[in-house]
Amino acid sequence: MRDLFHHQLDVLVLQLAHMCDLTAVAMRRATDALLDNDLQLAEQVIADDVSLDEARDRVEHDVQMLLALQSPVATDLRTILSVTLSVERVERMGDLAEHVALAVRRRHPETVLAPPLHARFEQMAEIAIRSAVTAGWAVRGPNPMLRQQLTADDQAMNDLHRSLFAVISCGEWRHGVAAGVEAALLSRYYERFTDHAVSVARKVSAVSLRRECQAAVPGPVHSLG
Amino acid sequence: MRDLFHHQLDVLVLQLAHMCDLTAVAMRRATDALLDNDLQLAEQVIADDVSLDEARDRVEHDVQMLLALQSPVATDLRTILSVTLSVERVERMGDLAEHVALAVRRRHPETVLAPPLHARFEQMAEIAIRSAVTAGWAVRGPNPMLRQQLTADDQAMNDLHRSLFAVISCGEWRHGVAAGVEAALLSRYYERFTDHAVSVARKVSAVSLRRECQAAVPGPVHSLG
Repeated sequence: MRDLFHHQLDVLVLQLAHMCDLTAVAMRRATDALLDNDLQLAEQVIADDVSLDEARDRVEHDVQMLLALQSPVATDLRTILSVTLSVERVERMGDLAEHVALAVRRRHPETVLAPPLHARFEQMAEIAIRSAVTAGWAVRGPNPMLRQQLTADDQAMNDLHRSLFAVISCGEWRHGVAAGVEAALLSRYYERFTDHAVSVARKVSAVSLRRECQAAVPGPVHSLG
Repeated sequence: MRDLFHHQLDVLVLQLAHMCDLTAVAMRRATDALLDNDLQLAEQVIADDVSLDEARDRVEHDVQMLLALQSPVATDLRTILSVTLSVERVERMGDLAEHVALAVRRRHPETVLAPPLHARFEQMAEIAIRSAVTAGWAVRGPNPMLRQQLTADDQAMNDLHRSLFAVISCGEWRHGVAAGVEAALLSRYYERFTDHAVSVARKVSAVSLRRECQAAVPGPVHSLG
């Protein structure tokens, strides 16, 4: 049976996993708003971002409480530090989804994304959202299959981000400089979103694997105090 | 006289301050490389970034040691957590300076920045570098004057970043879509660099002010253990 401290640690980790899921939802909605030029949906993404900020504040508060009251060491300490660092990245993922929605709102009723780029951005969104969901799974527990998925997604996103420049710099681009710039910045938001997700997944995977191993070994693991 | 733990904490804080200074140097050199199209200097910025990564790793290691061996609470714990969060941002500032250098290398021997934008980017660099130096001072100790400087710099950078779009989207822009996109992304690097610096300065200012107040009051401040 797990003690109270480890239950609190599990709750902390699950809060982080839930935040990953929220960013996946935010990026899905922000992309739908982008592709359908849906102002109402964009407004919803912008308004909802506050819940991610609040979730981050709660996690940071819980981290302080756990560190101050339980004085964890070894793997438990690494888990808490890894959650502390990851929660900032996940909150930033929410900001990046919000940036997409803000671009939609800024340009409305005009569309921000040139039509020939719709399929490309749907593809970027799929990768970004999958990486956020994968990060959530990685936070919940170790799974070596996730690492392969993340590496593939990271690479695919980088390729899409880089190849966009060729598309908007070529002579066939007929949508002007402003639309080119908007597309480049939007692409950067998806790329950074995925970067953060991959980084979170890798950081927590390493820790959760050690926690898993320790859970199989009886004995004190978390406190000198 | 301060005890060993507080000396270790001071060293941790000074490591972070030194990292802020390194990012200011990196951004100065990256900007010089950008404005002079100096490939050698760009290569130096790219090579030097590893020292910031190593500094981050050292700080993270020291944080783990301090948390595990000293079980700090209250203000000391908040200081350590604030350093933990800030060090990631400062390392990211180094990455953003490196991004500027990488853009120079990618385009060399062509220039990446259109000549009419040189003065604007020199101005952005001055603000970015000053914000990194200010962050370093804020980490070293509280100073209410710094807050005003940061707020002004943050606002000035946001204005420069936003107004760039008007410049490259207007009919008088004669440098093409690719140069417009490069300028927008470079501008975004300076803006994010400053954002991180301001965020670090604000986070550590709040904590260092509390530490200063506590240092004036005798009695135990750091441990229940």
